[in-house]
Amino acid sequence: MSSTDLLLTFNAGSSTVKIGIFAMDGHKARRIGKGVIDFRAEPLSLGLSRGSQIFDVPLKAKMTEDLRDVIDETFALLAGHFDVAALRVAGHRVVHGGDRFTSAILLDDAAIDAIDALRPLAPLHQPQALRFIRALRHLKPHLAQTASFDTAFHATQDDLVRRFAIPRALHDDGIKRYGFHGLSYKFIAAELARKAPRAAKAVVAHLGSGASLCALGRGLSRDCSMGFSTLDGIPMATRPGALDPGVILHLAGARKQSFGEIEDLLYHHSGLLGLSGISADTRDLLRDARLEARQAIDLFTLRIAGEVGRMATTLGGLDAVVFTAGIGEHQPEIRAGVAKRLAWLGLEIDEKANSANEFMISTGESRIAAHVIATDEEQIIADEALSLLGSG
Amino acid sequence: MSSTDLLLTFNAGSSTVKIGIFAMDGHKARRIGKGVIDFRAEPLSLGLSRGSQIFDVPLKAKMTEDLRDVIDETFALLAGHFDVAALRVAGHRVVHGGDRFTSAILLDDAAIDAIDALRPLAPLHQPQALRFIRALRHLKPHLAQTASFDTAFHATQDDLVRRFAIPRALHDDGIKRYGFHGLSYKFIAAELARKAPRAAKAVVAHLGSGASLCALGRGLSRDCSMGFSTLDGIPMATRPGALDPGVILHLAGARKQSFGEIEDLLYHHSGLLGLSGISADTRDLLRDARLEARQAIDLFTLRIAGEVGRMATTLGGLDAVVFTAGIGEHQPEIRAGVAKRLAWLGLEIDEKANSANEFMISTGESRIAAHVIATDEEQIIADEALSLLGSG
Repeated sequence: MSSTDLLLTFNAGSSTVKIGIFAMDGHKARRIGKGVIDFRAEPLSLGLSRGSQIFDVPLKAKMTEDLRDVIDETFALLAGHFDVAALRVAGHRVVHGGDRFTSAILLDDAAIDAIDALRPLAPLHQPQALRFIRALRHLKPHLAQTASFDTAFHATQDDLVRRFAIPRALHDDGIKRYGFHGLSYKFIAAELARKAPRAAKAVVAHLGSGASLCALGRGLSRDCSMGFSTLDGIPMATRPGALDPGVILHLAGARKQSFGEIEDLLYHHSGLLGLSGISADTRDLLRDARLEARQAIDLFTLRIAGEVGRMATTLGGLDAVVFTAGIGEHQPEIRAGVAKRLAWLGLEIDEKANSANEFMISTGESRIAAHVIATDEEQIIADEALSLLGSG
Repeated sequence: MSSTDLLLTFNAGSSTVKIGIFAMDGHKARRIGKGVIDFRAEPLSLGLSRGSQIFDVPLKAKMTEDLRDVIDETFALLAGHFDVAALRVAGHRVVHGGDRFTSAILLDDAAIDAIDALRPLAPLHQPQALRFIRALRHLKPHLAQTASFDTAFHATQDDLVRRFAIPRALHDDGIKRYGFHGLSYKFIAAELARKAPRAAKAVVAHLGSGASLCALGRGLSRDCSMGFSTLDGIPMATRPGALDPGVILHLAGARKQSFGEIEDLLYHHSGLLGLSGISADTRDLLRDARLEARQAIDLFTLRIAGEVGRMATTLGGLDAVVFTAGIGEHQPEIRAGVAKRLAWLGLEIDEKANSANEFMISTGESRIAAHVIATDEEQIIADEALSLLGSG
C-alpha cells in the first residue's frame, strides 16, 4: 500500500454530502482535505478545503436522481487538487444496519441489496447513502467501497434496553431500539478513553440538528436516547424527540390527519422550530429575547438533563458527561443549561473553561466531570474502510 | 348535615365500576362499605362489603348502554344494607379534565357537556364516567353530583414540563402532557406529608394495571410519566408506555396497519402482556420461570427506575421513593427490582421490611427513603364531594 494512496469518505445527509479526503499512511487514515455539496443551493457548487486553502468551485452538472453527473464532475474537480488516480477506497456512512450489520462491511451487490432492504426502517435517511454507493459503483465499478453504520456501535447494548413493551413478534421482526449517531459515539469513546481513562460511566450528548445521547459503559454503548427511528429521544432542530404515542393516535383519529401529514409534522415542523415558532437553530434562539425562544431552549436542556438522569440509572452511576457535535462543541449556554439541571448529582461547571469550549469544563470539586470533545464521524468511516481493505 | 347522611363514590373503569359508600361525619367522609360490579361477567352481580361482611348479590338487570336498569337495581340492593334514603351526594372519578377543570366540581348540565367535549382527549376512558353521571341524573335528578379529575392534581406542573416539542399551535390547542392517576397522587401526597414530612422531593410510583410515576415537590405535582394519553410513560399491563413515534409511522406506513389496528395493539396487546406473551399480570410473571416472563418483569423495573432518574432531575434531587397501588403495595419483588437499579443513588432496601410491605422499607443507612403507602382514590373523591357540598 503506497503512502500516497487516497481514501474518500461520503457522509450523505438529507440536503448535503460531506466528502472526506484522506491519505493512507500505512495503517492510518490521515485527513488531507474535505468537500461539501449543498443540494439546496442551485446552481450547485463544491466547497473544498485542503489544509488552510479554501475553494468554492461551481458545478455545471444538474442534480439528478442517480447523481452520476454530479459525482463525475466532482471527481474531475477533486483531481485538480488531489491525486484522484491513487484512490483506493470510498467509505460511506449508512444510517441503518438493522440487526444484520453490526460492524462495517466491504460492499458488493448482495450487501447493497441488503442495505436497500432496510429502507422501511429509515425511509427518509437510508436512501441518501444508497444513491452515492450506486453512482460510484456505476462510475468506478472496480473501486472498493465500504459502509459504516450509525446503528452498529449500539450492538453492545443489552437486549432488554433495546425492547419496547410491544408484542414479542414485532420485536423479533425488527421493531426495537437500534440507536443512531454511532460513528460519532465510537469516535468519542476512543477519545474519552485516551483523555479521561477513568471515566468508566459516561453519557455523551451528540447535539447537532439531529441529536441524541448515548450511555457509555467502559467505552461500549449501553443505552441510547434515539430508538427505532431518528424521531425519538430529545428534541431536535425539527424533530420532537420522545412523544406520547397517544398524540399520534389523536392526530390521526380525532383530527383526521393522514399519516403523511403526521410524518411531515414530526420530521420537519416539530422540535425547536415547532416549540419556538421562530427558528430550528439554537444560535438564533439564544440571541432572541422572546419567551418562545427561551422556552424552546429550556425544554431542550430539560429533556437532555432528564435523559442523563435516566441513562445514569441504566449505567448504575455517572462519572462524566461529554458534549459533542455542532451545538455540543460550540454553545456554552446550552452546556451550562444542561449542567445546571444536573447540579443535584454534584456536577459543577467552570464557567471560564466552558466559555472557552475547553476539554475539561467542570471544576476540580465537581463530583462528575464534564467535557467537550469535537467529534469526527468521517475519521471513523475512514478508519473502518482502511481496516476492511487491510483485512480484505 | 346529619351524621347519618350518605355519600357514594363511583370509580368507573373500562370493565368494572367500584362504588364507595361513605358516612358523612361532620366535615369528614368515613368509609362504611364498598361495592363492585364486573361488567365482563354475565349474569352481573354486585360484590358488596360492609365492615367485615361480604355479600355477592346477583343482578337481574342486563347491561345496557344507558346503564339505567343496572343502577336502579344496584340502588335497591344497596338499600338492603345502607340507608340509601339519606344519600346526599354522588362523587365520580373522571379521567380527563383538560385545561378547564383543575379542581373538583359540582355537576350541572353545562359541566357534563364540557366533560363530554373532552372525549377526544381520552376516547377510551372519558365515556365510562359519563354514563354513570347521566344515568344517575336521570334516575335521581335532584341528587347532587360531583366530578373529581385524574388530571387536576397535575395542574401545578410547570408549563415547560407539560410541553412536547411540537408546534405551539398544537400545544395551545390542548396537545400537552396532562398526567393521570391524580386522585391517587393527591392521597399519597397527603399521607406522605403526615408520615414523612421531611421528604420534600419524592417520586411516587402508582403501579396498577395502569401505571405511572409522579414527581412531588413539597407535595405538589412537578412531573408525571403519563403525558397526553394513558399510553405514555412506563410499561403497563397491556399498554406500552414510552414508544418511539417512528414505530407508529412504521406500522402505518411500511406495514399498512390501520389506525384502529394500531390503537388496539397499543391499548390491549402491548405492555407486560406483549413483552411476555404470557400474562398481563405481574403475579403470574413473577411465578413463571420462563425467560419471557423474566424479561417482562426486568423491563418493567428498568423503565420505572429510569423514570425515577429522569424525575429526580426535574425535582433537582430525591429524598424518597413511594410505591403504591396493587403492584406497588403488595409485590416486594417489583419494589426490590426497582430499588436495586437505584442503588447508585444510595437507595438501600431493608429486605425484611420490604417483604412485610411495611411503610418504611429502606434501611437506616439508605440515602433515599423508600416507602409503601396504600392509596385510596375513593377517599379523595369523597373528600372533594363533601368539600364541594359544604361550600355549595
